[in-house]
Amino acid sequence: MTASFDFDAWIALQLAQVESALHRWMQADPTDPASHRAPNDLMDAMRYAVQGGGKRLRPLLVLAAAQSAGAPPHSEAPLRAACAVELIHAYSLVHDDMPCMDNDVLRRGKPTVHVQYGQAMALLAGDALQALAFELLTPGAEQIAPAQQARLCALLARAAGCDGMAGGQAIDLASVGKRLTEVQLRDMHRLKTGALLQASVMMGAACGQVNATAHAALQRFGAAIGLAFQVVDDILDVTADSVTLGKTAGKDAEADKPTYVSLLGLDHARSYARELKAQALAALADSALADVRALRALAGMLVERTC
Amino acid sequence: MTASFDFDAWIALQLAQVESALHRWMQADPTDPASHRAPNDLMDAMRYAVQGGGKRLRPLLVLAAAQSAGAPPHSEAPLRAACAVELIHAYSLVHDDMPCMDNDVLRRGKPTVHVQYGQAMALLAGDALQALAFELLTPGAEQIAPAQQARLCALLARAAGCDGMAGGQAIDLASVGKRLTEVQLRDMHRLKTGALLQASVMMGAACGQVNATAHAALQRFGAAIGLAFQVVDDILDVTADSVTLGKTAGKDAEADKPTYVSLLGLDHARSYARELKAQALAALADSALADVRALRALAGMLVERTC
Repeated sequence: MTASFDFDAWIALQLAQVESALHRWMQADPTDPASHRAPNDLMDAMRYAVQGGGKRLRPLLVLAAAQSAGAPPHSEAPLRAACAVELIHAYSLVHDDMPCMDNDVLRRGKPTVHVQYGQAMALLAGDALQALAFELLTPGAEQIAPAQQARLCALLARAAGCDGMAGGQAIDLASVGKRLTEVQLRDMHRLKTGALLQASVMMGAACGQVNATAHAALQRFGAAIGLAFQVVDDILDVTADSVTLGKTAGKDAEADKPTYVSLLGLDHARSYARELKAQALAALADSALADVRALRALAGMLVERTC
Repeated sequence: MTASFDFDAWIALQLAQVESALHRWMQADPTDPASHRAPNDLMDAMRYAVQGGGKRLRPLLVLAAAQSAGAPPHSEAPLRAACAVELIHAYSLVHDDMPCMDNDVLRRGKPTVHVQYGQAMALLAGDALQALAFELLTPGAEQIAPAQQARLCALLARAAGCDGMAGGQAIDLASVGKRLTEVQLRDMHRLKTGALLQASVMMGAACGQVNATAHAALQRFGAAIGLAFQVVDDILDVTADSVTLGKTAGKDAEADKPTYVSLLGLDHARSYARELKAQALAALADSALADVRALRALAGMLVERTC
């Protein structure tokens, strides 16, 4: 491991690749037989949901973990996995913003998908984004080895579904106005946001080769940053304004949703986030992987972020 | 091929296996570490959407095609593929029935999922059913060979997504109140219902081994029965009553949706369905597969059905 790691340059390079790949894999070009033949308005709504914003934290985690796991430099697996996770994240936001859920009108500083395209199209765009995630993971065998495709689909499906993100959202739905214990709150977030963040790390790892020790350590890393992410989210919901966040601030308190801030208070929530970051860094050290610089920097970025 | 094929007995056996497997794979048993840990109300809504009704046409097509393709008798692949396709179908109905889409309150003779569980839970249940489909297709390598898992995920994702079912629904959404040509109507249905029916056949085929000739013939078979299914659906929307259909009859005409009946008239729609059945049977004959009795019988059942 060298001392000089230019995180900003690393991020810029990865983001350029992710944005370009998302653009390429969501094209509908009638002259290109390999591109989508989907109706224009559906593809428009899907692209609107995915492009032009977002921190791309999940793709960055995939790519950083893939690098740590020694994924072959020119393999398509990390980039496909990165984009697939982002599509799942994007679809969850589209559905979550709908009137029957959070009824939010602002996302990343823009009108939400159902405001822009109507509820029916938002519903379909979310559904199609989920399917597209699994399309990206199952290209020809020359792009990703079939066994790796299967492994990536397995990880993503479980993180997105009833034992993961969708399950966490269902708990969230049932918990509005209820007083949760810290354990119940943690269990909810472990599913709602933690599962997909952890899966991002493990999908990255699945693009390379890691031994059992490193695998277990990366799982602990993913769990810690997954929870840290949510704690910081709860803090920002209270401390940041809507313009900075690019979404409506103060929504949780208004909806009487339990949060780490309502449960622990602001100061303790902040120290908990720092503790989780320390746990994440300790797990990375335990992994004994040669190069964890990008993962370490991402853990820091995630906890220090202001939006 | 023997002359004696007891289709009723075949159906009964397959349905028993499908129902049992759907039950098993949607369990949330806290004492069983392999079962789902999802919140009870989400699993309830998911099971409600899937169980207790439905002709299970897609699973039957998967199992019949797997049999024709010589899938090993004790492989889990056909049954997992059969259930995965049914979960995608079930999720599409849940979302399609929601107020922002068709706003239907009756399905298979029961209140629709959003009527029973609320819109937010219906949205989440549909989302989680889609993810669960891909979970079923990606068990351990001892249940399905990884390369086969990848192939099945690839087929299902493309049939469900923007170039398949979701794309067809978007065209449907945009076509209410419009006069479509027969070509436009066919293109819509080819995606909306045809893609998943054709994928059922091809996923079954992927559970066994078929040569290029049989593969192409099964694709033609799947395309023909996919379209036939929709033509018959349009006929039944006009000729059957709600009790027989188990859903609100006459919805399409009321919503001023283009149908084969509105385009061709009832008599021509009926003869078109018969013509498509003949095309399907011709494709089966071309396949040169040894045993296509179940597929042939299913094509007949699909066109002659009264609900």
